[in-house]
Amino acid sequence: MEKIRVVQWGLGNMGRGMVEMLFDKEGIEVVGAIEKRVEETTDLGVFLGNEKLGIPVMNDPDALLDLVKPDLCILAIHSFVKGVVEEIRLLTKKNIQVVTIAEEMAFPFVTEPELSKEIDEMAKRAGVTVLGTGVNPGFVLDTLILQLSLGVRRVDHIYARRVNDLSPFGKTVMEEQGVGLSREAFLQGVEDGSVYGHVGFLQSIPMIAKSIGLTYDEIVQSREPIMTTVDRKTKDVFVKAGMVAGCNHTAVALKDGKPVITLEHPQQVRPDLEHIETGDYIEIHGDPDVSMVIKPEVPGGIGTIAAAVNVIPHVLNARSGLLTMADLPVTHAIMDDFTNHLR
Amino acid sequence: MEKIRVVQWGLGNMGRGMVEMLFDKEGIEVVGAIEKRVEETTDLGVFLGNEKLGIPVMNDPDALLDLVKPDLCILAIHSFVKGVVEEIRLLTKKNIQVVTIAEEMAFPFVTEPELSKEIDEMAKRAGVTVLGTGVNPGFVLDTLILQLSLGVRRVDHIYARRVNDLSPFGKTVMEEQGVGLSREAFLQGVEDGSVYGHVGFLQSIPMIAKSIGLTYDEIVQSREPIMTTVDRKTKDVFVKAGMVAGCNHTAVALKDGKPVITLEHPQQVRPDLEHIETGDYIEIHGDPDVSMVIKPEVPGGIGTIAAAVNVIPHVLNARSGLLTMADLPVTHAIMDDFTNHLR
Repeated sequence: MEKIRVVQWGLGNMGRGMVEMLFDKEGIEVVGAIEKRVEETTDLGVFLGNEKLGIPVMNDPDALLDLVKPDLCILAIHSFVKGVVEEIRLLTKKNIQVVTIAEEMAFPFVTEPELSKEIDEMAKRAGVTVLGTGVNPGFVLDTLILQLSLGVRRVDHIYARRVNDLSPFGKTVMEEQGVGLSREAFLQGVEDGSVYGHVGFLQSIPMIAKSIGLTYDEIVQSREPIMTTVDRKTKDVFVKAGMVAGCNHTAVALKDGKPVITLEHPQQVRPDLEHIETGDYIEIHGDPDVSMVIKPEVPGGIGTIAAAVNVIPHVLNARSGLLTMADLPVTHAIMDDFTNHLR
Repeated sequence: MEKIRVVQWGLGNMGRGMVEMLFDKEGIEVVGAIEKRVEETTDLGVFLGNEKLGIPVMNDPDALLDLVKPDLCILAIHSFVKGVVEEIRLLTKKNIQVVTIAEEMAFPFVTEPELSKEIDEMAKRAGVTVLGTGVNPGFVLDTLILQLSLGVRRVDHIYARRVNDLSPFGKTVMEEQGVGLSREAFLQGVEDGSVYGHVGFLQSIPMIAKSIGLTYDEIVQSREPIMTTVDRKTKDVFVKAGMVAGCNHTAVALKDGKPVITLEHPQQVRPDLEHIETGDYIEIHGDPDVSMVIKPEVPGGIGTIAAAVNVIPHVLNARSGLLTMADLPVTHAIMDDFTNHLR
């Protein structure tokens, strides 16, 4: 069977990691990459600091896609639907399947109902699938919660908490989380919307609620700065002691004033430097209760990279349209030839 | 939308539990039950010791199915493919969808390749789905492992252990596990095949291996008696101190002599009476490692009941044929009208 032809769109921290994982996998051929920061056509191997591979990297999406004609594109350039919709228009017009790690795309129907409808229609017209995935939203605080509820007869309240290390992510995420700011600047950023915190609660909560059939009246969110008492440093950011190392972002879906779904997601760079234990915690309260712990947490960077790559055969097999992780068969790691998993 | 018409085939401990759960769910109508132990047609409410419900229970499957014309039947009568294939022949001939908790049906292709082929063909001809599910096999030691591997780039070894309480199960399972026997009788039973232990390793291991694309040369199993030092009693069985309370059954898939998938499943009645902590443990060793704990374990009885009921809309939506849990979209609890989940 012919290999699956993949284009990587966006070569930031996540995009680079995806390319490296794709290189390691059988049945997949990375045929090109799109990166707006390259000024002229270059080689992907050279771009990554290695030997030449004969794989073009271009800043012109239209030209690159026409040149290499991929089956599927992984889009890793932005967190919000508005930041990827133009790209999805181009990809679907060219009948290319889309996996994106834009967090809002994991379940875009509530925050962007009109764009969601447009994307769904474009995808159906083109006969391709558009899927948003990632470690979270897309996995730990939604898909995994759903899967854990299989053995439950009655769900009263879902409580989940993800304490993770934000270090693998790049500048986009650091800015969204207010990393490196003073407490005042953080609070100001929350006010004016420049500090967003986790992009995902307004995706994970509706996805869980719709799948399980829970209803709620409102979602109440809070964003608190996580201050550091020590210097914390990552590849992309330096946080001095006394500054903001991350954002403790929580969201509660309330029905008649009582919590139905509570998600907590304190995210920060280098929690280990203050001996903060990371982990994923899911509690389903009902009949019966289920209480799950993953320690340490499913790592954010690798988890997002792996999720985006591992879903590829499922996306190629799926019906056309704008789908979510809840629409796909159980997604998992793949160690053999990816084309073995095509139907 | 019209309610989903369900027949419960088998009213043992699991079947009764399913009926009670089905009664609680919107969008589902229990239209009849089949139970070979009733001598003449009776009422399901009366059979369960409650008031009359106007739902027939009969010992004649053919007559009952023609009378009530269900959309779907839950089959809970036997652990092995050979013990349910005749029933599946009848159900598919009548174009009825099938959910069964026969453990071997969770992934029957390796132990019963020819019957699997026949069932798949019958189901496709009838345009119905046949699915094997349950807490395990079907969920904890296979589907959940698969789902947890989504964020993993490279899988080297999967180790999982389920320490559970066998008490909710009925006589069939107690006999398979050797519960109540002396050590000698247990060992003799392992020899002659009457003590089987857990029915599921030869389903879970191939299902994991096929989905992830792992290969192995052989599966090595061991079955050891779990002796009790105290009297242990359930609804269905009494185990004196000094006798066998359960079976410590393990299976290892080896490749070139090295373990690829290791599953351990010590099952016993009333482990609490000897302060044995129950739990589900999954470790994926690779890049990255993932280590998950559910404490206490997803309960075996309720878990099986809930899984069989919760998958109903997914089964009705699925393509025809003999499917496994790895073929369905993420399965989960359902709190609203089941018909909301039909496509």
